[in-house]
Amino acid sequence: MPFEDLGFAKVDHHRTLRTGMPEVVLGEGKRAPQVAEIFARLARHGGNVLVTRATEEQYAAVKKKIRRAEYHDLARAIVLRSDRTTYGKGTICVVSAGTSDIPVAEEAVVTAEVMGNDVEHTYDVGVAGIHRLLASRESLCRARVVIVCAGMEGALPSVVGGLVGVPVIAVPTSVGYGASFNGIAALLGMMNSCASNVSVVNIDNGFGAGYVASLINRT
Amino acid sequence: MPFEDLGFAKVDHHRTLRTGMPEVVLGEGKRAPQVAEIFARLARHGGNVLVTRATEEQYAAVKKKIRRAEYHDLARAIVLRSDRTTYGKGTICVVSAGTSDIPVAEEAVVTAEVMGNDVEHTYDVGVAGIHRLLASRESLCRARVVIVCAGMEGALPSVVGGLVGVPVIAVPTSVGYGASFNGIAALLGMMNSCASNVSVVNIDNGFGAGYVASLINRT
Amino acid sequence: MPFEDLGFAKVDHHRTLRTGMPEVVLGEGKRAPQVAEIFARLARHGGNVLVTRATEEQYAAVKKKIRRAEYHDLARAIVLRSDRTTYGKGTICVVSAGTSDIPVAEEAVVTAEVMGNDVEHTYDVGVAGIHRLLASRESLCRARVVIVCAGMEGALPSVVGGLVGVPVIAVPTSVGYGASFNGIAALLGMMNSCASNVSVVNIDNGFGAGYVASLINRT
Amino acid sequence: MPFEDLGFAKVDHHRTLRTGMPEVVLGEGKRAPQVAEIFARLARHGGNVLVTRATEEQYAAVKKKIRRAEYHDLARAIVLRSDRTTYGKGTICVVSAGTSDIPVAEEAVVTAEVMGNDVEHTYDVGVAGIHRLLASRESLCRARVVIVCAGMEGALPSVVGGLVGVPVIAVPTSVGYGASFNGIAALLGMMNSCASNVSVVNIDNGFGAGYVASLINRT
Amino acid sequence: MPFEDLGFAKVDHHRTLRTGMPEVVLGEGKRAPQVAEIFARLARHGGNVLVTRATEEQYAAVKKKIRRAEYHDLARAIVLRSDRTTYGKGTICVVSAGTSDIPVAEEAVVTAEVMGNDVEHTYDVGVAGIHRLLASRESLCRARVVIVCAGMEGALPSVVGGLVGVPVIAVPTSVGYGASFNGIAALLGMMNSCASNVSVVNIDNGFGAGYVASLINRT
Amino acid sequence: MPFEDLGFAKVDHHRTLRTGMPEVVLGEGKRAPQVAEIFARLARHGGNVLVTRATEEQYAAVKKKIRRAEYHDLARAIVLRSDRTTYGKGTICVVSAGTSDIPVAEEAVVTAEVMGNDVEHTYDVGVAGIHRLLASRESLCRARVVIVCAGMEGALPSVVGGLVGVPVIAVPTSVGYGASFNGIAALLGMMNSCASNVSVVNIDNGFGAGYVASLINRT
Amino acid sequence: MPFEDLGFAKVDHHRTLRTGMPEVVLGEGKRAPQVAEIFARLARHGGNVLVTRATEEQYAAVKKKIRRAEYHDLARAIVLRSDRTTYGKGTICVVSAGTSDIPVAEEAVVTAEVMGNDVEHTYDVGVAGIHRLLASRESLCRARVVIVCAGMEGALPSVVGGLVGVPVIAVPTSVGYGASFNGIAALLGMMNSCASNVSVVNIDNGFGAGYVASLINRT
Amino acid sequence: MPFEDLGFAKVDHHRTLRTGMPEVVLGEGKRAPQVAEIFARLARHGGNVLVTRATEEQYAAVKKKIRRAEYHDLARAIVLRSDRTTYGKGTICVVSAGTSDIPVAEEAVVTAEVMGNDVEHTYDVGVAGIHRLLASRESLCRARVVIVCAGMEGALPSVVGGLVGVPVIAVPTSVGYGASFNGIAALLGMMNSCASNVSVVNIDNGFGAGYVASLINRT
Repeated sequence: MPFEDLGFAKVDHHRTLRTGMPEVVLGEGKRAPQVAEIFARLARHGGNVLVTRATEEQYAAVKKKIRRAEYHDLARAIVLRSDRTTYGKGTICVVSAGTSDIPVAEEAVVTAEVMGNDVEHTYDVGVAGIHRLLASRESLCRARVVIVCAGMEGALPSVVGGLVGVPVIAVPTSVGYGASFNGIAALLGMMNSCASNVSVVNIDNGFGAGYVASLINRT
Repeated sequence: MPFEDLGFAKVDHHRTLRTGMPEVVLGEGKRAPQVAEIFARLARHGGNVLVTRATEEQYAAVKKKIRRAEYHDLARAIVLRSDRTTYGKGTICVVSAGTSDIPVAEEAVVTAEVMGNDVEHTYDVGVAGIHRLLASRESLCRARVVIVCAGMEGALPSVVGGLVGVPVIAVPTSVGYGASFNGIAALLGMMNSCASNVSVVNIDNGFGAGYVASLINRT
Repeated sequence: MPFEDLGFAKVDHHRTLRTGMPEVVLGEGKRAPQVAEIFARLARHGGNVLVTRATEEQYAAVKKKIRRAEYHDLARAIVLRSDRTTYGKGTICVVSAGTSDIPVAEEAVVTAEVMGNDVEHTYDVGVAGIHRLLASRESLCRARVVIVCAGMEGALPSVVGGLVGVPVIAVPTSVGYGASFNGIAALLGMMNSCASNVSVVNIDNGFGAGYVASLINRT
Repeated sequence: MPFEDLGFAKVDHHRTLRTGMPEVVLGEGKRAPQVAEIFARLARHGGNVLVTRATEEQYAAVKKKIRRAEYHDLARAIVLRSDRTTYGKGTICVVSAGTSDIPVAEEAVVTAEVMGNDVEHTYDVGVAGIHRLLASRESLCRARVVIVCAGMEGALPSVVGGLVGVPVIAVPTSVGYGASFNGIAALLGMMNSCASNVSVVNIDNGFGAGYVASLINRT
Repeated sequence: MPFEDLGFAKVDHHRTLRTGMPEVVLGEGKRAPQVAEIFARLARHGGNVLVTRATEEQYAAVKKKIRRAEYHDLARAIVLRSDRTTYGKGTICVVSAGTSDIPVAEEAVVTAEVMGNDVEHTYDVGVAGIHRLLASRESLCRARVVIVCAGMEGALPSVVGGLVGVPVIAVPTSVGYGASFNGIAALLGMMNSCASNVSVVNIDNGFGAGYVASLINRT
Repeated sequence: MPFEDLGFAKVDHHRTLRTGMPEVVLGEGKRAPQVAEIFARLARHGGNVLVTRATEEQYAAVKKKIRRAEYHDLARAIVLRSDRTTYGKGTICVVSAGTSDIPVAEEAVVTAEVMGNDVEHTYDVGVAGIHRLLASRESLCRARVVIVCAGMEGALPSVVGGLVGVPVIAVPTSVGYGASFNGIAALLGMMNSCASNVSVVNIDNGFGAGYVASLINRT
Repeated sequence: MPFEDLGFAKVDHHRTLRTGMPEVVLGEGKRAPQVAEIFARLARHGGNVLVTRATEEQYAAVKKKIRRAEYHDLARAIVLRSDRTTYGKGTICVVSAGTSDIPVAEEAVVTAEVMGNDVEHTYDVGVAGIHRLLASRESLCRARVVIVCAGMEGALPSVVGGLVGVPVIAVPTSVGYGASFNGIAALLGMMNSCASNVSVVNIDNGFGAGYVASLINRT
Repeated sequence: MPFEDLGFAKVDHHRTLRTGMPEVVLGEGKRAPQVAEIFARLARHGGNVLVTRATEEQYAAVKKKIRRAEYHDLARAIVLRSDRTTYGKGTICVVSAGTSDIPVAEEAVVTAEVMGNDVEHTYDVGVAGIHRLLASRESLCRARVVIVCAGMEGALPSVVGGLVGVPVIAVPTSVGYGASFNGIAALLGMMNSCASNVSVVNIDNGFGAGYVASLINRT
């Protein structure tokens, strides 16, 4: 399996060998020129490229090298969309409990779109106003996979999980204060979900949820 | 304010001065003869007496001294019911998320009854089958206070809180395994409830919930 | 139950259907224009509106749309007071352990006032100078509900709980340093209160305490 | 949606409405007669029934009512297999890091089989002997979903995740000692996996992994 | 500084060189014959000997070698009292919040007595019934050092600290349940005491408190 | 017991009734004008005044009202020294493990001096270079109380405790990185000290250590 | 690299390819017949075999198959010593802080001996009696590697680390009570050691320490 | 053993007595003039000097006094290289899991070089792309000691440990987000490594790893 060695990074290309998989770079903790350098190498291979947790500064550095790169500021993602084929067999529905969870939800949306999926979303349907969630029920039940982003008590995935018969990917967010402990309360809530169809990714990891959901949707 | 000093315990009587308040003893950590001794002293004052987290052995010791004492084994409570006046102005509704939460819920029920309240309960209405909860909606909306006992992700109080317009007392239970951490996940979930009408008591503290609910119901 | 969908938020109006309940928005994590937009929608319905954990910038955005909005900077709250009816049947007493706990206490005061209650407060009566608390005893015993805000060891609710015969809502604050862990020590202390009439809300959640106390006071 | 109310449990039947979904009961925390009673009700509907975390005592009580029930002692599962249709489209591969992780892995295997899947497994392929894992590579790459059970440092899902292009469900186990903290180390390791295709369920939750994998495999 | 090497233990004798200091052995984690062997060596030097956290089995082994050894079962201490001189200049007052904290308090009492102090105690004066504590005020204010043992919220040392002008040694106990976390809540409460004269020893460490108090009282 | 009520603070004067005790204010969390106002009230009573965790801004506000106030910037303390009597009967020795622990140690020094004690100190004598500590042995053994400030593993109090026969007050500091968790490692180390004469105060609480040591030294 | 597949275990033989390395099995979590089966396979290859955390029952099962197997009950280890060559170039010194730490220390001793090392040990030299450690200084300074086992505050490795110029392997033990949290306090203390030559293994992992020390000693 | 007392620091020189050992100063928490002063004293003795976790400001202060001092900004280290002898007997290989772990890895490299070792490194070989690690296998197997730096799940040391037969020093890094908890996840993963040849140093402690590895390499 081939990779390029840049010294500070070993750029992997074997993923692109499988049709339609994007190249992904975690922006956080990398310097802008490093991100730009890696991005440029990946761009050569003709697949989609995604940088997550990217800063505006990293985007500026990338933009200088690859004109077609775009920045989704809500999702903090740099995207190069060369391949626009739809690989997903159905719809992915992304749900957020509150307004403050939207950035994480958007990261999931961007990821799923870059990976060739049709995405629907419904935001601000937290469990304390269950009628708002029930009003979105039709859209939920249409989806082939559901992603649920929630902070605070992280209860939404359990309720959604009980409403649908498909896999639910739960994303705890760091939204909340006091005893939410930057997402730990939500994470623990989701790990202990009484709905059997729920699995969980890291706090604020909208990307991971979008990625797993995309794999499920293309199977 | 008067109290009797037994050496190992200072038995307080000033609470009985207020109409209809029971005397309460925490059984856990006390030896059976100590519980019996304290119980006998309290029984003299003519009010109701309640021992929580009581063992069968403690009950046997009490029973020898006070014949009329009763044991609620599910709730692990010893009860002396001398005063059967109804002090509560409305109904207290006790809800449990699962079958395993019932012992904690029953402790709340017994406490509220000893304190002179009409109590309704509805059990096994966890959030992953939201239709079961919605089927109990009428009973919930009739209550003047609602107590919600839930382990695992502890999501139920938020959903109930959104359905009713009265105070909700949430009781995290130690039901669950793995990352439920003996009730910590449920406790954190409830502390971070997105429903504004929720306040929380200690893990497995059905008594505390019953006590606070009773105070609210008699105001 | 009706709600308006703004895309980033689903604005709920069914609460206003019940007499005298305010509309509440959590300011934290929302952008200023979002808060202003939501505020304006809510203001149309003629009830009181409250934004908690609001910044000056959010207030400025709101102020442009709704002239009568006011900012309580100590409590970090934006308030629209359209309805000044008194709904509470008695007095709510708000107590703080120290000077640094006052902002949280003030959030409780503002919330209770917006919800139509008479509020008294007594500040800086921590347990290490018990004579100061005892000097406020009369005011405490007059209240129908008591809210107690304390950081550090969070011991005050237990002492207050022993002095009064009404529900006590305990609010741990993030005041303290070292092993106070931003309010965890106070939270744990309050969860384990040996006073039976204490229930607890999230760290720094003066709003929640004010809300629950108001519901109790209007029952 | 229909359910039966047994007082201590509300038995749900709407899941059986969807083809091939089993009825599932969490044995832990329920008394043997309760489990038997629920089991009998569910058995009437002709679908498969699964009790997880079941004791021998619970099995004995079930067996008296339903002769065809079987006990998988390694997996601690009671199973009623009425429907033997294969619903899964491909193979589910269950991997365990060590010998001690096998009970959790077996729970996943039983669950996936009850839900109509072809299951392969490969055990004791922990990351410190990477050649053993690489020797199973073919089987892994054939699977449509992979379940990975690991205690201690929980590193295996990341390595497996890098080898396959399908969703990986990671199950932290409580295997280990000292700073493994009954599975917390493994759980945190898996939550932070650098492989993008990994999502996680609760500690020792082989059932959840089997359930989610089955849903993915039948999509 | 001299010590004897028994292989499994190095028995120190230099402490006995200072007048009136007892030899102390932690019983926990040692086998009965080991404790007996160490005890016998120490007994030869004519000072007092104290074994803490000792079992009945260890006592039996000791008793066979040293007839005059006594067992305080509440305090779980084996004591050899050869020297009965009073070394303390004043009184040490030991306070417990509840009945269940008495074993820890008694360990402090035994330790202080073995070290030659006059000890007074007052038990079951928790903060939720502040009048009981205030009734013991005279005894508290007479003491030269105060030891306070409390579980649950651990609030008592702060209140006592505010009432007296001498050092307060706080001992968190593992009494409580749920979010008391075996004494962590009490420990944190005491570490954050708002009374300036409080210092803290380990959970359930009545011995340490008695030892420190004795040193203070003999200065 | 008299106190003045400033609204935001209840200023206590009963402590000054006892000879030579300073008035103490926690600066952290108070606004500069609040500190200045409280300081001015306290200054009128002729005793010493100490503000801990004070900022330069608070000092400036105080200075405007009370010219004689001084600022110890290393210790972050504002001091008014009206009474220079020596109340301590012996010497207090303050020890720090490293250079970075000096600010906490200096807070202890300033506190002990304001309370009328002779103070010696020895800094940078951490346990990994035990010969440096042993070189200070004479000064340690002369002291009537020893204060030990240490971050990282917090091992120094145990070693010092074994060298001296007087009470040791241990102060964990937040010095360190990684798994020192801002002083938790040091705190836990000190709570579990195998030296019997050690008691502990809060992380970075040099003031508390100085206060307790002063009380011991004046007994 | 060859291994045998027993189904429940993949028995690795490539380690024996390197001279003098033992085969190691973790006994904990394995059934007695499984351990015996694995042991028998390994025994065939002529190298040493070591089972750690082994029960008496496992030993009985092994003994039936391999007569020469021995059980070290203090260390809970089953040993087959076929190769008695000395591979280590110098001495390994194993130190324990207290008597209760000896079982962990003995596991390190047994491991190092099985791996062909000369081992010295010195026990019960905790930091609160530093003269006992200093008395063993000569033996420490002779060693090529030092292993230090300590519970409670875990301070000993730092002091030892400062005395010697060779690598120190620190083993936190679960010895202690209260805030020792089963070895967490010791673990954190050791992770934060101010001595630069200290590295750490898992709580109670005497085996790991013995293994690493042996590798160092044979280099 | 000689040391100089600067008041704020006791500068130790006995380490230089042993050939080729550098003098080391922890920069963090010290003021620039303090660092410069200590550095200058140490420089006089002719050995190498290393300041870790040093700021540019500290470097500027040092540079004024000692012209030959150099700053490695990636590693945040100030170095004075007077002695360039090679003391290590073989090669030390430093491995990093990701690009973001490089600063910690570089601290290990600089430390090992200052201590007279030949160092090789291989970066960005995380476990999710195991082929990249296997490609570096030759370099790994050549080393006499291996240092592995990894954040997130911290799985790399286990895999490397299984590939080599020499000691592996694992360094958890604070790289990651969410449930990585600033390196706790990686730390726990490494403590529980299933590879027997792994020992661990503090989070981000590249220096400690380099120091221990150097000691091993020169034995």
